[in-house]
Amino acid sequence: MTSARPPVELRPRRFKGSGSGGGRGRSGLRTAALSAGADAAPEATARARREPRPAGGAGLGAEAADADGGGAAARAPPGARPPSALLRRGPPQGAGPAAPRAAMEPGPAAARGPGWRGAAAPAPAAAAAVAAVAAVLPAGGSGERMGVPTPKQFCPVLERPLISYTLQALESICWIKDIVVAVTGENMEAMKGIIQKYQHQRISLVTAGVTRHRSIFNGLKALAEDQPDSKLSKPEVVIIHDAVRPFVEEDVLLKVVTAAKEHGAAGAIRPLVSTVISPSADGCLDHSLDRARHRASEMPQAFLFDVIYEAYQQCSDYDLEFGTECLQLALKYGHVHAKLVEGSPDLWKVTYKRDLYAAESIIKERISQHICIVMDTKDENHVGHHLEEILKNELNHVKVTSGALCPAGRDLEQIILEQCYSYVCVNVMSSDFEKTRRLLNMLEESNLSILYPIVVISVYFLDYKSVPFDQKMENLMQIKEYAKEVKKRNILLCGLLIYYPQEEQNLQASLRQGATIIATLIKERNSGLVGQLLVA
Amino acid sequence: MTSARPPVELRPRRFKGSGSGGGRGRSGLRTAALSAGADAAPEATARARREPRPAGGAGLGAEAADADGGGAAARAPPGARPPSALLRRGPPQGAGPAAPRAAMEPGPAAARGPGWRGAAAPAPAAAAAVAAVAAVLPAGGSGERMGVPTPKQFCPVLERPLISYTLQALESICWIKDIVVAVTGENMEAMKGIIQKYQHQRISLVTAGVTRHRSIFNGLKALAEDQPDSKLSKPEVVIIHDAVRPFVEEDVLLKVVTAAKEHGAAGAIRPLVSTVISPSADGCLDHSLDRARHRASEMPQAFLFDVIYEAYQQCSDYDLEFGTECLQLALKYGHVHAKLVEGSPDLWKVTYKRDLYAAESIIKERISQHICIVMDTKDENHVGHHLEEILKNELNHVKVTSGALCPAGRDLEQIILEQCYSYVCVNVMSSDFEKTRRLLNMLEESNLSILYPIVVISVYFLDYKSVPFDQKMENLMQIKEYAKEVKKRNILLCGLLIYYPQEEQNLQASLRQGATIIATLIKERNSGLVGQLLVA
Repeated sequence: MTSARPPVELRPRRFKGSGSGGGRGRSGLRTAALSAGADAAPEATARARREPRPAGGAGLGAEAADADGGGAAARAPPGARPPSALLRRGPPQGAGPAAPRAAMEPGPAAARGPGWRGAAAPAPAAAAAVAAVAAVLPAGGSGERMGVPTPKQFCPVLERPLISYTLQALESICWIKDIVVAVTGENMEAMKGIIQKYQHQRISLVTAGVTRHRSIFNGLKALAEDQPDSKLSKPEVVIIHDAVRPFVEEDVLLKVVTAAKEHGAAGAIRPLVSTVISPSADGCLDHSLDRARHRASEMPQAFLFDVIYEAYQQCSDYDLEFGTECLQLALKYGHVHAKLVEGSPDLWKVTYKRDLYAAESIIKERISQHICIVMDTKDENHVGHHLEEILKNELNHVKVTSGALCPAGRDLEQIILEQCYSYVCVNVMSSDFEKTRRLLNMLEESNLSILYPIVVISVYFLDYKSVPFDQKMENLMQIKEYAKEVKKRNILLCGLLIYYPQEEQNLQASLRQGATIIATLIKERNSGLVGQLLVA
Repeated sequence: MTSARPPVELRPRRFKGSGSGGGRGRSGLRTAALSAGADAAPEATARARREPRPAGGAGLGAEAADADGGGAAARAPPGARPPSALLRRGPPQGAGPAAPRAAMEPGPAAARGPGWRGAAAPAPAAAAAVAAVAAVLPAGGSGERMGVPTPKQFCPVLERPLISYTLQALESICWIKDIVVAVTGENMEAMKGIIQKYQHQRISLVTAGVTRHRSIFNGLKALAEDQPDSKLSKPEVVIIHDAVRPFVEEDVLLKVVTAAKEHGAAGAIRPLVSTVISPSADGCLDHSLDRARHRASEMPQAFLFDVIYEAYQQCSDYDLEFGTECLQLALKYGHVHAKLVEGSPDLWKVTYKRDLYAAESIIKERISQHICIVMDTKDENHVGHHLEEILKNELNHVKVTSGALCPAGRDLEQIILEQCYSYVCVNVMSSDFEKTRRLLNMLEESNLSILYPIVVISVYFLDYKSVPFDQKMENLMQIKEYAKEVKKRNILLCGLLIYYPQEEQNLQASLRQGATIIATLIKERNSGLVGQLLVA
């Protein structure tokens, strides 16, 4: 991966008629410019210095200042805002790993479309509570516990690196002004590629240290005003989070930030899953701890910036090498007793391979919570609404709505803006691709599929048992070619033939079979089956 | 679920010619007969007393003694052994959640087929190390952390309850003589149904107490000789495990049992994933624990029976209500410092919904590690071996073998015995189901699909671009009907049409597409797509 411009099919697109102004003014990439002193691999710093400025194409001008090696990250100028005229309301709950709740509220922060995951303007409620907040994300780990060669934060989940989900969750929160990510020199280029490809916002990169604490310290240095040439502004409160906890939500972030303002430090905790024991020197049980009196310390944590930065400045080498707990540093050097905040089970850390499996299943489930059935004509409405009912019955907790391409097509545009990732396009007694093609065009023009694969199932209601396999079928088999094309844009297209008898008495059975296949394709969201014409 | 006989299609079957004798002599169900005193819900005990003896059909005679309320579980008489003449070698590694390693060794213990997951005869090596071992499995939990109404041990994973995987793992180890499961009165019937349906062996049921410790105590009482009417014999060593840790392997069980014999008690431990902290009374950090000096106590644990039974007899009500750690009881009342044994990451406890997702993915991956390509004629060998090569290239770490139905069909029988759960049946320039039907018959006659769904992909190499959709195609569409039929026996059948041009120049591209589809169908193992005819 490089810092070159992303492939053309993944560049942001806008709806027709939305005008050419007001596009996404910049990529989210700021500079990986922190010289990390003894911690940074020299070659990584050198590489960062040689970094050319990426070409600033319309709507995708990555600003990369030259690295200066002065212990500070350069800051990009404020970019243009997302095209708010386009957008009518925020995304639905549960649409992504961290549905941006602030977007539900009215006001400028809500002006955010599928590809826009957070503008710099604060939401009114959050702004009152938090003043200047930045986040530091240590992402220099090697992932040895995972048992795979790729560090776990870069492991793909639905073909996108795990860390991108975590960045998406943080940038969706408008009151987090800067996100500083510490990555190793050898992963710096890959990280820049991820930021460009998935259009992450407000990110600055620094070089990771050899331990987690040294990486965090490098991130804090980039935010400190006492560093020469720092172009990031010092926050009042800094959040520390892990790159491998992608499901963090605004709720808990707001809680730790608010508590940190009051107490100086705060962190999320969870009940212990296993009893903790203390072994003796000979590998036998010395004693077990009372589970009720202990908690697991999780992430996110938040600190008054001065408290944690001063603590790190006083740290011994031993602390930086062997310590893991930032709350303990705030206690030891800042005499601050961190407030502990109960977190949700979603805060868990992706540690083992099984956690990657779990993350993928959770994400698949979340983006499959809304199915849109596209139908226009009276015939289509007839069977379309039948199908809608059956899907509603079969899929608990899934929102099934219908939308129309004709006459104005406004409905569907709205559904796309609500980040629906699953479409069923109904065609009755026809075997052409006209409607499907229009739907695919709309989806391609939104930039919805940048983050998640979209499933489109083109359903054909045909009386195929009376009519022999003929030209219609051969026409439908062309779906393979269309599917191959749109697959490049992360859209997974399948065809589904549902038996539509003249007398309609067997329609219910066909519809039920069809609904099962639709539910399977949406749930699995597997690219291996694109272009298939399935039969119910 | 009831204790009635399982549906006929899930009953054990044997290969033709194996004779009618030597069948599985009994279901694994012993009796749920422990009166749990103050701990048992009275209505549950009453229900257990009213329990009729299930009908003892040939090969499936569940022995259920009347409950007597005397604090002991009745024991079934020794049953017949599996038909060893049938079986040539044990299952491959990684075929199930806990591949029975002992079965790799020669001797009577290895005489075990796909459906046979452990005979009572000890393997020679294990027998030397362990004398009389039983296991107690508390399974009375409510699963409140899962956030679902079904207790987690009964949640389905690939449509089979989680606890069945754990029982499978334990019963696969021949030197564990008895497995005592504690379930609540309200789940007793469901548990009996699970034991019958999945043909679990050497299981006794007791009524769970209201806490984990009380459930374990009930299990121990059933094994103690001092209980009147106990028909289980007292073991030298007892293993305590959790119903929701399905991936336990023989290796760690042998380690804890061996260590328990020497030290009186032993338990598996793992490094801590999160730092453990101690909160102060006002919800702030008091101190954090040194991660290097603490461990997570996991399961399995093992004890000299007398040590743990006497400890439980001395326990206070407070211990039984609020304690969680058996090792601590052995220390407190038996003055035994348990030996701590490093366990693998696989020992993790299914606690949250995400853990169920992870478990399902792990199991799917494990049973997809071996693909058998079935081919007979010269033509089939030609493209079949091409396909084999491509699958080997595309699927790292997956064993791809080929087998033949003709002339004698011995190869394939061997592969079925090795517990291969994925079959690709190659047909060249033919569109009939003759070969597939023979393969399906063989699979049905084994009882391989009792525990896991088998995927069968019937592949047709046809020059379908030159020939119009004709009778051949209509013939192939009948696959839906076959698929519906074998689905009842947990076999997932799909068709796959691979373009086979006369000139063969495009064959490679078709084969690659075909391999992708095959890999997807095997990996997903989703019943929603059975009966489909896919096209490469």
